[in-house]
Amino acid sequence: MASSEIDALTQALARLPGLGPRSARRAVLHLLKRRETSLAPLLRALERVNEALSICSTCGNVDTIDPCTVCADPRRDDRLLCVVEEVSDLWALDRSRLFPGRFHVLGGRLSALEGVRPEDLSIDMLIGRIARGGVDEVVLAMNATLEGQTTAHYLAERLETFPVRITQLAHGLPVGGELDYLDEGTLAQALRARRPVS
Amino acid sequence: MASSEIDALTQALARLPGLGPRSARRAVLHLLKRRETSLAPLLRALERVNEALSICSTCGNVDTIDPCTVCADPRRDDRLLCVVEEVSDLWALDRSRLFPGRFHVLGGRLSALEGVRPEDLSIDMLIGRIARGGVDEVVLAMNATLEGQTTAHYLAERLETFPVRITQLAHGLPVGGELDYLDEGTLAQALRARRPVS
Repeated sequence: MASSEIDALTQALARLPGLGPRSARRAVLHLLKRRETSLAPLLRALERVNEALSICSTCGNVDTIDPCTVCADPRRDDRLLCVVEEVSDLWALDRSRLFPGRFHVLGGRLSALEGVRPEDLSIDMLIGRIARGGVDEVVLAMNATLEGQTTAHYLAERLETFPVRITQLAHGLPVGGELDYLDEGTLAQALRARRPVS
Repeated sequence: MASSEIDALTQALARLPGLGPRSARRAVLHLLKRRETSLAPLLRALERVNEALSICSTCGNVDTIDPCTVCADPRRDDRLLCVVEEVSDLWALDRSRLFPGRFHVLGGRLSALEGVRPEDLSIDMLIGRIARGGVDEVVLAMNATLEGQTTAHYLAERLETFPVRITQLAHGLPVGGELDYLDEGTLAQALRARRPVS
């Protein structure tokens, strides 16, 4: 149907999350028909990112500078350190602009099933950062999954000896959540963590 | 949050059809985390397509070769010519592998509202191809819209003087279509074009 170059582009796009073969074809047609306004900018952006891509040696974020934009930001509070599983979690929390401190990306979560052990995550790097001092609070922002919570418990134990406050994200009803539609796990958490009405 | 290079890439991806800001961010993260297996292949594919991109001087298809893959294919039947509005229509019909002939892309449809006149479409090119001879049947595969059908009528008139059979795609119930859910236009077409049960 199309040349092998166009097929290769379609396949490369179809592998992106959120795009399938059908939407990849539509995207390719869009690019082909708008060479100057769509294809060229995308190509330039990819080239630049590919040239400069690096993993932040401080926190594990992916960026085009090292230290990354977050670690290099002088307005952030060094005393607050938020530990997340993945770079996507860092981005999600940072987008909300609710957390004024620094981040640390573990690069995954402990998992007996997938064979992920503590030494596979950047835990030593985290402990190094905390041991250097200056951190008052470590926020464990793991996912509310079995493996995320196992990782949080493990980290809390490892960090016990440091003079830092260790906190974790609250669990309970999501905003707008209706009891009738929530899973039992969430309900149980919300009930267990119930607070007096002030 | 992220560097300007990553922002630029996110924005370039977000402009593709089927991707919004949210899925573009996910796609960028996917690319950043898989530099060798995802970012590099996409970059190479875009580079190749950008270098070779051309409009087929015979049929108006977009491809990386001219004449395009369809026009250059020796197994296709030169006597059958299918006229479509857009390149995407050519691709859709060609994917089905049901049409063994050649194609011609008009580059749009006649539209009083949008000010698209016959001279804005590649109609002279189409008439040139038919005048050169060798074509037995012209299939008008316009969309079943008011403008598509206006274009088909106009083309049928313009082609009247040539010794070719002019046909158009059948209109009626789509496969799996239930009467109760179909619009009146489709029902009217299906009724008008009713055929004896053989």
